Amino acid sequence: MTPPQCLDTTFAALADPTRRAILARLASGEASVTELAEPFAMSLAAVMQHLQILEDSGLVRTEKLGRVRTCSVDPAGLAAMERWVRDRRSIWDRRLDRLGDLLG
Amino acid sequence: MTPPQCLDTTFAALADPTRRAILARLASGEASVTELAEPFAMSLAAVMQHLQILEDSGLVRTEKLGRVRTCSVDPAGLAAMERWVRDRRSIWDRRLDRLGDLLG
Repeated sequence: MTPPQCLDTTFAALADPTRRAILARLASGEASVTELAEPFAMSLAAVMQHLQILEDSGLVRTEKLGRVRTCSVDPAGLAAMERWVRDRRSIWDRRLDRLGDLLG
Repeated sequence: MTPPQCLDTTFAALADPTRRAILARLASGEASVTELAEPFAMSLAAVMQHLQILEDSGLVRTEKLGRVRTCSVDPAGLAAMERWVRDRRSIWDRRLDRLGDLLG
């Protein structure tokens, strides 16, 4: 995937409250699929579908050891997105600074 | 809209390369709809549809003065999203720090 498509899938993955909640949970430590599913009123299959989307977008990594699939945050996906937002923000902040200089 | 729904629409709005390009252009200064449409091989109507999604998500503001609609970045939408990413990131960074302390 080229970077623009990566960002498409990353932002699309985050446009869902369940997927953001899963990511929030994983930010505080890795978890099995069963542990992740616990707080949600949905089937294990539905949670695994959300996990697949998070994994495809590079936000989450999963690893199967024996019968347990362990999930953790993949920093690469989040970093690419943060970089995009930060770059836009910095151009915008510089503009506001210049405006401040002109008016100040 | 409650905050979680706001984030849904913000992330969904950013999951499209044309809308990210429009936002990138607006980060360097406000522009009319006609100016925004220029670099894209699409109709003015298509660009206006993308702008509507960006406006609904709180990322872009538009103002009509006479016959010209001027578009600019709305910092509120971007800020809410940045806050969400930063909060996740900081929990995750603290975890890595603790791990470093244990291993160091």
